[in-house]
Amino acid sequence: MAGKRRGERSLIFPTRPHVVSAGSVAAQNEAAGPLGSLFDMVLEDDTWGENSFEKAERKMFESAVRIALDKAKLRSGSLHCLLGGDLLNQIVSANFAARQLNVPFLGLYGACSTIAESLLIGSVLVDGGYADTVACAASSHFSTAERQYRFPLELGTTVPPTAQRTVTGAGCALLSGKGPMGGAPFRNIVVTGATIGRVVDLGISDASNMGAAMAPAAADTILSHFGDMEETPDDYDLVITGDLGRFGSSMLLSLLNDHGVDLTKKHLDCGNLVFSTKQKFNSGGSGCGCPAITLAAHLLGKVEIGEVKRMLFLATGALLSPLSSMQGDTIPGIAHALVLEMNREAMGL
Amino acid sequence: MAGKRRGERSLIFPTRPHVVSAGSVAAQNEAAGPLGSLFDMVLEDDTWGENSFEKAERKMFESAVRIALDKAKLRSGSLHCLLGGDLLNQIVSANFAARQLNVPFLGLYGACSTIAESLLIGSVLVDGGYADTVACAASSHFSTAERQYRFPLELGTTVPPTAQRTVTGAGCALLSGKGPMGGAPFRNIVVTGATIGRVVDLGISDASNMGAAMAPAAADTILSHFGDMEETPDDYDLVITGDLGRFGSSMLLSLLNDHGVDLTKKHLDCGNLVFSTKQKFNSGGSGCGCPAITLAAHLLGKVEIGEVKRMLFLATGALLSPLSSMQGDTIPGIAHALVLEMNREAMGL
Repeated sequence: MAGKRRGERSLIFPTRPHVVSAGSVAAQNEAAGPLGSLFDMVLEDDTWGENSFEKAERKMFESAVRIALDKAKLRSGSLHCLLGGDLLNQIVSANFAARQLNVPFLGLYGACSTIAESLLIGSVLVDGGYADTVACAASSHFSTAERQYRFPLELGTTVPPTAQRTVTGAGCALLSGKGPMGGAPFRNIVVTGATIGRVVDLGISDASNMGAAMAPAAADTILSHFGDMEETPDDYDLVITGDLGRFGSSMLLSLLNDHGVDLTKKHLDCGNLVFSTKQKFNSGGSGCGCPAITLAAHLLGKVEIGEVKRMLFLATGALLSPLSSMQGDTIPGIAHALVLEMNREAMGL
Repeated sequence: MAGKRRGERSLIFPTRPHVVSAGSVAAQNEAAGPLGSLFDMVLEDDTWGENSFEKAERKMFESAVRIALDKAKLRSGSLHCLLGGDLLNQIVSANFAARQLNVPFLGLYGACSTIAESLLIGSVLVDGGYADTVACAASSHFSTAERQYRFPLELGTTVPPTAQRTVTGAGCALLSGKGPMGGAPFRNIVVTGATIGRVVDLGISDASNMGAAMAPAAADTILSHFGDMEETPDDYDLVITGDLGRFGSSMLLSLLNDHGVDLTKKHLDCGNLVFSTKQKFNSGGSGCGCPAITLAAHLLGKVEIGEVKRMLFLATGALLSPLSSMQGDTIPGIAHALVLEMNREAMGL
């Protein structure tokens, strides 16, 4: 048993669960961004044939899981567990998608950190021998998030430059404890470790500056991870955060710099990758779907071909609710981290 | 690795994680019920010195965890992970409590099944060797739930006889991978297995009859559990559900009967235990706190002294949101199950 924990809050996965497949669904604005050609499916419009944005979101969640399964030539019946969540109250997108998929389901809520939380618990289930194949998924939808968290779209409210745009997208990754699978698209990606996040709150209360609210949690998890694992940025080709956006990213680099860690050359943020600055979405993308689709459509492929050999993947969540903000609370954040790397065999080691 | 899975969706925990401590906080109505003398702490009123019901709820959540730690003579720093959630949007009670406790945190949402979900994932972390000590907790509050899910209390809305009353309470159980601890209150309780729930929806759409909405999920998990583990009701002294209430309980027994399983003599429901019929709370208690405080204050003690030697503990969740109901959806349910038993050594085996 000893040896699966490292330091205060990090885990290692000795059996190195494989990421064997992924699925991504996104909408028109995401398709017009830099990653546009990589998504498995693109919505024609924001309701996708349904009579509400919310029903479109749950269909996206379900579709991302089905696409990941189809690409691995698996049926949903072969899933030992589905793990995931979304931003809607009572995670209804995930719950109703799980009903359609009819598989054992563990619902999670970590705001935009959900895809990392689900990969973390999914890796534990697989590495620990409790499951052979699990699906980890998360979704968000600009139109469902706006009317739940902010204002009805019909108001046409303007936003400050620190605001980010919720990604309309759903992403899923399949983990396997049996190594690469015959028909699955990925053969070389393994999850080797993780760091569980802590709720961190430096007192930011501006709900239009989520990046700043989440950056301290990201810094906390990155520093703990390096400490626990006795590693430095040199051990990674890439340290990628979920959706800090432009303001949050520069705050993260500055916070880490205060602790003597220079991540300037190693850091990217999914919020900055998913939209181009030409799209004028202020500080970049956000939402559970932002890291989920960037991982599923873009980052996993980089690890598979060895362009990124070792990556620390963090997703960060702002743990507010509209009600906590109305009651005068500041915005706590959390960040969970996963180590995704190219398998040694694929690297010829 | 082989041998930790059983059948379609059940797990066994070969290292038998110990439940070493528990904490419970409840309010006046719960204190006036049959379990009233067993709670560790009772609120003087529904706001507990805070300026909102919501802030009282998060304080209850935090207090339940601290009480469980205190009883085991542990500090929060010795927790490798806190797992839990609640009924409020964005699980703010759990999130803000986790901020105060400052420990690694995994936020979960399974509606009223949350305490079982957190014990399930917590047991996996401990049994798998990823954590030595974890806290599993859940809370609910009548006044926060009413105004979020139903109507402002000020309206004085009446309810039908099938309605249940949300328990104002928070419960926490501590799991240890190192066996019984010196100063901890429980020495004889182990978690030996679990069954992951599936989202089940038989088409109930009456949000005042949650018991009926959740009963099919409970039946589904119980039948899967018996099938996967090759067991029958005879293998248990008690099969206890979380908050089906009176209507839901009779529906569960009837559904099981249709499948040739007679649970009449083995079944109890936390919703029926927490309030007496004299209290006139219609169909009984409900909410995340209902199974959480009944487990923490009452059931664990029964296993500790061997009055119940082997118990199947299920908590059931209704996975609706006010918005899904408004959009015409039916109410899906989920139930996760845990096998809690008196340790063989304590039984002299």
